[in-house]
Amino acid sequence: MRGWLAIAGLGPGADALMTPEVAQALEAASDVVGYAPYVARVPERAGQARHASDNRVELDRAREALRMAAEGRRVVVVSSGDPGVFGMAAAVFEALEAEPAWRDLDIHVLPGVTAMLAAAARAGAPLGHDFCAINLSDNLKPWALIEKRLRLAAEADFAMALYNPRSKARPEGFARALAVLGEACEPERPIIFARAVSTSEEQIDIVRLRDAAPEMADMRTVVIVGSSRSRIIKRAGRPFVYTPRSVPA
Amino acid sequence: MRGWLAIAGLGPGADALMTPEVAQALEAASDVVGYAPYVARVPERAGQARHASDNRVELDRAREALRMAAEGRRVVVVSSGDPGVFGMAAAVFEALEAEPAWRDLDIHVLPGVTAMLAAAARAGAPLGHDFCAINLSDNLKPWALIEKRLRLAAEADFAMALYNPRSKARPEGFARALAVLGEACEPERPIIFARAVSTSEEQIDIVRLRDAAPEMADMRTVVIVGSSRSRIIKRAGRPFVYTPRSVPA
Repeated sequence: MRGWLAIAGLGPGADALMTPEVAQALEAASDVVGYAPYVARVPERAGQARHASDNRVELDRAREALRMAAEGRRVVVVSSGDPGVFGMAAAVFEALEAEPAWRDLDIHVLPGVTAMLAAAARAGAPLGHDFCAINLSDNLKPWALIEKRLRLAAEADFAMALYNPRSKARPEGFARALAVLGEACEPERPIIFARAVSTSEEQIDIVRLRDAAPEMADMRTVVIVGSSRSRIIKRAGRPFVYTPRSVPA
Repeated sequence: MRGWLAIAGLGPGADALMTPEVAQALEAASDVVGYAPYVARVPERAGQARHASDNRVELDRAREALRMAAEGRRVVVVSSGDPGVFGMAAAVFEALEAEPAWRDLDIHVLPGVTAMLAAAARAGAPLGHDFCAINLSDNLKPWALIEKRLRLAAEADFAMALYNPRSKARPEGFARALAVLGEACEPERPIIFARAVSTSEEQIDIVRLRDAAPEMADMRTVVIVGSSRSRIIKRAGRPFVYTPRSVPA
């Protein structure tokens, strides 16, 4: 039997945000591979093997998945959100490039709703004009590059989606990022802290940049910083934030 | 009866890429509102009214939808992809901000798989590291701002997803964008032209920037430009493109 590998995005949390394409791949799989909390989101099925691993072992996990597909198994590697946005897809292709024997395997990436889209939807439309997405973890790149990108993004007047703002291993980085943004952006700019969107632990906080504090983010938070033109619409409940489509000449 | 408004993303084309949340909202709706080709993607239902309109009338469409929700109707405004990324969500909030009487309506944004995620999945993982999304249409912003953003994005070494690269009304803009990229980026950089992803008319072309031509894009294409570190993996079929997760110090 011919094996295959699908690298699938589970969406941000709720089953209602997972695509039918991903649900079908999970039904057909012989093996589900991923970071333990993401594998735990997949319902157990008789005859389906589960391979849950720790954080920070993405390349080992990618090689294991490719090896099983090469042996004829039907393998789904799961990521939260979209696998192509700071998820497992890039790790699988890095492992693939290093091993020519795996090159012609049947490999597909199945997209999903990435965290920033779910977070933006809860807040309104903060990404309604040009924007960028930056991973704030400096595990795999120098911190100086992160600061450079934040400054250039502010100069371009992009809205910004900031992934992995803070973790136990990196408690200080997000405070430094907020300091850079405080220098480069107006203090009234809206900033959205969206935690665990679409799960029972969802929490959305919308403040002005001047009132943002590092403790408002943790490892399950995605942060969206508006552009200079983003607007807050006050109403009875939580306000809406949107970035207008137009910029006057 | 209390009305509501949902601004929903249909995904890039295939039903298998539309979330269950959006499918449920469409089942519950009394009225479906949108640009005609997107309304045409929604199956007709007895008792459900359809309000299809032309391109470039987003604000009129948004007001019509808000007015109907205020009258107690259950309204879904549909966008292709994700409504918060160059879709209808920002237009609805712009209309909402202008009319205090609508401010406390029941309004939700339902996220979807935006075109760049589906395009990236087909190509591999070109958005696997930091990236930006730029709308190349100059209908609502000056062309000089688009050029400035392209240059700053190249300086930040973002991968770039370029929406609305070319239309009949704007045949020249994408040629100018390619010229800017040609000055700011290495000629070997991979560039992906992804047209009508997940539909029967899907076409994916992967070339080097030096070989990119304006005619490779039309109004149904999203273009992804790799970063300086993006890699092409050659194989028997279409190659994969990915952007490595790491940048050495």
